[in-house]
Amino acid sequence: MMSKLELITFGRAAVDLNATEYNRPMEETMTFTKYVGGSPANIAIGTSKLGLKVGMIAKVSDDQHGNFVINYLKKSGVDSQYIKKDTQGRKTGLTFTEIKSPEECSIVMYRENAADLYLSVDDFDDDYIKNAESLLISGTSLSQSPSREAAFHAIDVAKKSGVEVIFELDYRPYTWKSKEEISIYMTAVARMADIVIGTRDEFDIMEMNINFDDEASAKELLEYTPRLIVIKHGVKGSRAFTKDGEVIEGTIYKTKVLKTFGAGDSFASGFIYALKKNKSIKEALQYGSASASIVVSKHSSSEAMPTIQDIENLINSHEG
Amino acid sequence: MMSKLELITFGRAAVDLNATEYNRPMEETMTFTKYVGGSPANIAIGTSKLGLKVGMIAKVSDDQHGNFVINYLKKSGVDSQYIKKDTQGRKTGLTFTEIKSPEECSIVMYRENAADLYLSVDDFDDDYIKNAESLLISGTSLSQSPSREAAFHAIDVAKKSGVEVIFELDYRPYTWKSKEEISIYMTAVARMADIVIGTRDEFDIMEMNINFDDEASAKELLEYTPRLIVIKHGVKGSRAFTKDGEVIEGTIYKTKVLKTFGAGDSFASGFIYALKKNKSIKEALQYGSASASIVVSKHSSSEAMPTIQDIENLINSHEG
Amino acid sequence: MMSKLELITFGRAAVDLNATEYNRPMEETMTFTKYVGGSPANIAIGTSKLGLKVGMIAKVSDDQHGNFVINYLKKSGVDSQYIKKDTQGRKTGLTFTEIKSPEECSIVMYRENAADLYLSVDDFDDDYIKNAESLLISGTSLSQSPSREAAFHAIDVAKKSGVEVIFELDYRPYTWKSKEEISIYMTAVARMADIVIGTRDEFDIMEMNINFDDEASAKELLEYTPRLIVIKHGVKGSRAFTKDGEVIEGTIYKTKVLKTFGAGDSFASGFIYALKKNKSIKEALQYGSASASIVVSKHSSSEAMPTIQDIENLINSHEG
Amino acid sequence: MMSKLELITFGRAAVDLNATEYNRPMEETMTFTKYVGGSPANIAIGTSKLGLKVGMIAKVSDDQHGNFVINYLKKSGVDSQYIKKDTQGRKTGLTFTEIKSPEECSIVMYRENAADLYLSVDDFDDDYIKNAESLLISGTSLSQSPSREAAFHAIDVAKKSGVEVIFELDYRPYTWKSKEEISIYMTAVARMADIVIGTRDEFDIMEMNINFDDEASAKELLEYTPRLIVIKHGVKGSRAFTKDGEVIEGTIYKTKVLKTFGAGDSFASGFIYALKKNKSIKEALQYGSASASIVVSKHSSSEAMPTIQDIENLINSHEG
Repeated sequence: MMSKLELITFGRAAVDLNATEYNRPMEETMTFTKYVGGSPANIAIGTSKLGLKVGMIAKVSDDQHGNFVINYLKKSGVDSQYIKKDTQGRKTGLTFTEIKSPEECSIVMYRENAADLYLSVDDFDDDYIKNAESLLISGTSLSQSPSREAAFHAIDVAKKSGVEVIFELDYRPYTWKSKEEISIYMTAVARMADIVIGTRDEFDIMEMNINFDDEASAKELLEYTPRLIVIKHGVKGSRAFTKDGEVIEGTIYKTKVLKTFGAGDSFASGFIYALKKNKSIKEALQYGSASASIVVSKHSSSEAMPTIQDIENLINSHEG
Repeated sequence: MMSKLELITFGRAAVDLNATEYNRPMEETMTFTKYVGGSPANIAIGTSKLGLKVGMIAKVSDDQHGNFVINYLKKSGVDSQYIKKDTQGRKTGLTFTEIKSPEECSIVMYRENAADLYLSVDDFDDDYIKNAESLLISGTSLSQSPSREAAFHAIDVAKKSGVEVIFELDYRPYTWKSKEEISIYMTAVARMADIVIGTRDEFDIMEMNINFDDEASAKELLEYTPRLIVIKHGVKGSRAFTKDGEVIEGTIYKTKVLKTFGAGDSFASGFIYALKKNKSIKEALQYGSASASIVVSKHSSSEAMPTIQDIENLINSHEG
Repeated sequence: MMSKLELITFGRAAVDLNATEYNRPMEETMTFTKYVGGSPANIAIGTSKLGLKVGMIAKVSDDQHGNFVINYLKKSGVDSQYIKKDTQGRKTGLTFTEIKSPEECSIVMYRENAADLYLSVDDFDDDYIKNAESLLISGTSLSQSPSREAAFHAIDVAKKSGVEVIFELDYRPYTWKSKEEISIYMTAVARMADIVIGTRDEFDIMEMNINFDDEASAKELLEYTPRLIVIKHGVKGSRAFTKDGEVIEGTIYKTKVLKTFGAGDSFASGFIYALKKNKSIKEALQYGSASASIVVSKHSSSEAMPTIQDIENLINSHEG
Repeated sequence: MMSKLELITFGRAAVDLNATEYNRPMEETMTFTKYVGGSPANIAIGTSKLGLKVGMIAKVSDDQHGNFVINYLKKSGVDSQYIKKDTQGRKTGLTFTEIKSPEECSIVMYRENAADLYLSVDDFDDDYIKNAESLLISGTSLSQSPSREAAFHAIDVAKKSGVEVIFELDYRPYTWKSKEEISIYMTAVARMADIVIGTRDEFDIMEMNINFDDEASAKELLEYTPRLIVIKHGVKGSRAFTKDGEVIEGTIYKTKVLKTFGAGDSFASGFIYALKKNKSIKEALQYGSASASIVVSKHSSSEAMPTIQDIENLINSHEG
């Protein structure tokens, strides 16, 4: 029998098509390189590469792109028995990325009726979740039915079985119908989760821009279920807030930035790995930052995920 | 003032992403090369390259892919004043192509809510059509509203002004809702057109597979408006039928086939060019076949469109 | 074996709920009386009552309202073997009518996703149409797919078998998406029909308000298939135009008007009946006007349809 | 200034069309009598008639049916400043009722794209809720967006301001997409409410038929926010469960049942009124049952709502 999964990620598994040529507008780039993408897929790959036992619950197209995603996840050691293929001809989401300069990256997303939004409660067994340690929910999975209901169901199963729930806000301005809708469902999940991770911008969107600072955002949520809130500020670092009032500042690792894509997913991978290995929150923020720092200097989000050696080398090189 | 356009093509302008590596399943190919695609866009490029004055009526995304399409058409000499950008965030259609072997090519299409299907009667001026010699309608533009109504309106304007209507069946198994729907709208347009061009398979689909042979298909339509019907049989050549009962067999130009994509569009380009230059139908079929023969030996559908020199060299090398 | 049907009507069969109290705004009326409604259903009832052998092709809800419609049509002598019940829970359309005064009648229509719009080519056999003398198409059936394609298919079957096609414009401002859509499909059908009947307002809508007078409207269509165009002007009478240039003015029968609903359907019933009985066009216009005159003085559209005796009594009482 | 509202009901305001003739199948009934309907509208009318200060947040059609609903609610003393009219032409929901016998009542509902499902967060001010004592949410308002998000937002405002939340399960098998969807949203709201009221069948549906008995259903919810759970068993009475473990059995008032429609809404009206007047839970169940008993013996759900005198007379006549 398979040993217990330490993490299941839930939601979007997609294809990234990164402009092969840098520093040019996308209308002039002529070739694209294909990678697996989507925040929870990247986190599954990242944490698996660091050594965690990881599975993913997702839905992809029943075509060459879907096969590519599944094959890559398998090759990365991710358990993919609950990565289902859509039977209605829906396509895997696409993200074309353009790297004009480190400060100016933009994307073109194909998310219309994407297969991942049709992940439903029938696509997985409750037992798969019950037998895991942690469940990571991605905000994008809440943006449309039936994926939204599948996420709520997965969270309910996790909570009833004592499985830790991690919520990565992962806001993408697609498929949501209104700012109220975003706020209502992201807030509902954030209040039920044990750990909430997001950028300052994502917290603002969830809070409908009521101009909370980090302290206020954390205080609001810590009154509910969460025990740990992580708010990220890009190159300016990150901060963690705990239920007992502790505030922990993250470390910053300067690097030559090629693009900013994938920073969040690699941060989450390093951070979650460190928590699983019983590192302190301070150390976990270090692992997250170091991991992010490595990915932003490389071309892809998934393929570039660092090894534990890469991360620890970087951390060590900044000490003493 | 701009001189009179000899041809306006109407409908789909899209992006092709061709697997850069040949003879491998697409799940294993890692890079894609970008080209303009879509049958009426390819025909606009092909005929413009041959020297006709050509315009296109189309709708693309308001993003980098849309810009690329418009820029490429302009560079190819196609008048693009009525290539509009969608204001609702809809995307340019995509076609990923996989070339496993000359006999085994397959595609993955992203057509969900594509911008071209939202081309509407408000996107162009009737005078633009009235001032042209010929209007080419692509079957795909009939597959959904409001593009369907825009096509019917364009045809009505053309017919009332004595503008020749050419119908390229261009059947793609996407966005159509039922086989009856396909048949009803394609038949309605075929009966109103002056020239109808399609593969045997496309005629079968239009006729709901009642097992007509070429003669029966042609006879049925020639009772209505059409004066010329062209039925293509791939490498086995093509046949033209006229209102006064003539049947003209096309010439076959053998080549080393890389892929079959784009054969139809290059055939139409060569064929229409020759008719415009007052060649005989027999000669026009030769120009079409030679043009197709050149494109199937190359990697793209649009970029690979031959010059008049290329076509005539090939024709001449087979004679005498 | 059933003897040959003289008429098949195609399209909307619905329920009318007429305010029982007259001369009051509907928000104050407290009871409604139920009748069968929908233009082609009313014409089927009207012509059957006059003695024609009539059938109807339609789709209704699988509930008490659908049963009521079918039972009433059967009781009225209409062959209802191709009045199908929707299997997806869609409802029969409703029309609430308010009679504030003879000049001020208004309606509230429930047409959202109505069962009749889902009539499809699979719901009837081509042979049913082939064996009839005439097929009456209602404009409302063109307003949405798949009912639109079913209508086009029915017309195609009729034309190939020499069955006369009568087109009742029956414009209702519901479910159509744009004025171009209305014009395109109504014009396409009008050009294929043998007889076209509509009000001046309906012709204006079909022509996109280009300010044709009756002569111009008729001339435009008579260049295509139609041999007879009837344009109605309400209480000011009606006019018929034939292919050989004849213009026939209708007779006017003054009456005490209770409401204007149902006038068009009763006109069509009387007019079609008279043509079938080889009356002259002049006489047919008399039968139509007399029939309309009787219905507008009564509470319902369907139940109030006159007998041949009623019509001929009225005509005779105006003569000599 | 208006004094504080004791109750705001939130959700469906509709029109009931009750067959005027009893004991006949609806396909044979010929007239219908019009009443205001919809659970939260009925409860607003019922509690207002009993003397509470009540408002309603709802959306109706901008037509004669919408006017009727608003006028009737105003006449019943319900504050209707936040009963908005839909600006997109959507219709007020309809319910046709058929009373074949007291045991055999059935309905035909028109809920497709009904105006009430388009109630949105923009349609009301948060202050309106903040200034009330209690907010009653109807389960039907959760069945579709944007009404669902509006309900979640209203609940969030209420909870942050200390306004009591009452959840009437009000399950109607329309517009919901799957049984999981029903369960997820109804459970989420039930856990946030202070008081939950529903029939045994409705609890079963919310729990996805896991065969809980009343005790288990109550225990599950009382672990969250609710302090009072009421489970109704039709003519067999009702039971209330409190957070401190008390179980209170309701009284049964036998009556000559005409139809069962409206029993739940009149129960809620009497029950909520009594709680507001500081009656015991035992007494509140009596008021609820007496109120229901009166309504089921009459023709309508809204018009038939009893006065406090009616209720207390019935209660007193059963005592001593």
